[in-house]
Amino acid sequence: MEGIGALFATHPQRPPDPSLIEACATACYECGGLCVACSDACLGDGHVADLVCCIRTCLDCADVCLASARIVSRLTEPSPMLVEAQLMACAEACRICAAECENHAGMHAHCRVCAKSCRACEQACRALLHGASFA
Amino acid sequence: MEGIGALFATHPQRPPDPSLIEACATACYECGGLCVACSDACLGDGHVADLVCCIRTCLDCADVCLASARIVSRLTEPSPMLVEAQLMACAEACRICAAECENHAGMHAHCRVCAKSCRACEQACRALLHGASFA
Amino acid sequence: MEGIGALFATHPQRPPDPSLIEACATACYECGGLCVACSDACLGDGHVADLVCCIRTCLDCADVCLASARIVSRLTEPSPMLVEAQLMACAEACRICAAECENHAGMHAHCRVCAKSCRACEQACRALLHGASFA
Amino acid sequence: MEGIGALFATHPQRPPDPSLIEACATACYECGGLCVACSDACLGDGHVADLVCCIRTCLDCADVCLASARIVSRLTEPSPMLVEAQLMACAEACRICAAECENHAGMHAHCRVCAKSCRACEQACRALLHGASFA
Repeated sequence: MEGIGALFATHPQRPPDPSLIEACATACYECGGLCVACSDACLGDGHVADLVCCIRTCLDCADVCLASARIVSRLTEPSPMLVEAQLMACAEACRICAAECENHAGMHAHCRVCAKSCRACEQACRALLHGASFA
Repeated sequence: MEGIGALFATHPQRPPDPSLIEACATACYECGGLCVACSDACLGDGHVADLVCCIRTCLDCADVCLASARIVSRLTEPSPMLVEAQLMACAEACRICAAECENHAGMHAHCRVCAKSCRACEQACRALLHGASFA
Repeated sequence: MEGIGALFATHPQRPPDPSLIEACATACYECGGLCVACSDACLGDGHVADLVCCIRTCLDCADVCLASARIVSRLTEPSPMLVEAQLMACAEACRICAAECENHAGMHAHCRVCAKSCRACEQACRALLHGASFA
Repeated sequence: MEGIGALFATHPQRPPDPSLIEACATACYECGGLCVACSDACLGDGHVADLVCCIRTCLDCADVCLASARIVSRLTEPSPMLVEAQLMACAEACRICAAECENHAGMHAHCRVCAKSCRACEQACRALLHGASFA
């Protein structure tokens, strides 16, 4: 999310330091996008029947991440408990999807790329939960 | 979600009793849709500046509910911990959005309609969390 | 979308007759939801390799319908050309997904349910495009 | 969408040259994300009543772009007519949102950032429509 820093810099309700929010929103869009693409790469595999669980997990993780991305990138009048609950769900989805994709990372390079992005997103969600700069 | 019962009835991976899942998916789509419409009704109000917090909360609740609806309505190879985490976030978002809309329910009939739907969705998420028929 | 009529009835920017909009928004949520569920039912089928094209088409149709549902159900300051362009894309996605699911309707009852919903949504989008009550 | 090139490079169904698809998917996620953030920056402005049309347009453009991003980034068994119809809707939404944000670009720097991203996304959609490398 290249332009989000520039947009946050001119946002009327920006917190003193939006860097953790920016990193988390960027990671959520990146991970959500790669989970969509990884589910599709698994679907296009000659052995799709072996990848059903991975497809399902990637579809779920994509939905959680892309909803979280929208929520985290809003700076006006956030409800801290709502944002926290969604960040916890997102970190959990990323943890589970990373573990699933890592199972196939040896055979499927796209799962390796996706797993790496899931780990980064899990970490960005946890950093924001602990930094709590959105409150 | 009129047709979802008919679809689940013919799903190759349906659990013995998908009724709690069906009720939860239906409530999530309904609540997500009404939150989109309520945020828009607030935006079109002559006193929009007084409704900024309600708009933000409805937008977030819509995103959480519509992501949860997708996840809950998948019956193939679910990750129970992922589904649970998202249902907890959804129940929390609905609880917070219901409380916000109830603040305006006297003056804005659309907030009354939205709050009622949020309460029903919160309850459907909690019923599924406790019934755990998706596992 | 049971409550959307009640919500529109109290919307400050409602048009004289929102019935075509209400029908279209309801059909878009219903069809989007059933396409998510049908893609998952295909994914859980013992012959998933034969259903790859159907899964892909349902996933796309779900995304188009659920985006269209949000857009159509906003009544405040619409851009008629934007709404029309998205409704045309939605009618096309529904037409294509209905045709794909009808191919499997004999063997997969969930595809029959999904195809019926796609046809209804295509029709609701076209009715709104021609009625143009959102402008 | 940093990792999408690496993911496409290992996708079993990648076309000979996925570069236009990669550019379009990246632009759609970027523009969708910035439209979410711009609608929120407008909502948090002291003069929100003057920005209602801009908020509405950004919300619609975000929904169109984020749905398009998912669809474009799937490479397995695409329906060319479905993808084309959605890309045309996306180019149109971006054109309209760019024009709306440019109206406020002098007073609101976030609208300037958002408009630039909308123009880039419109162009990426049109390049893919004309290059047609997804077919």
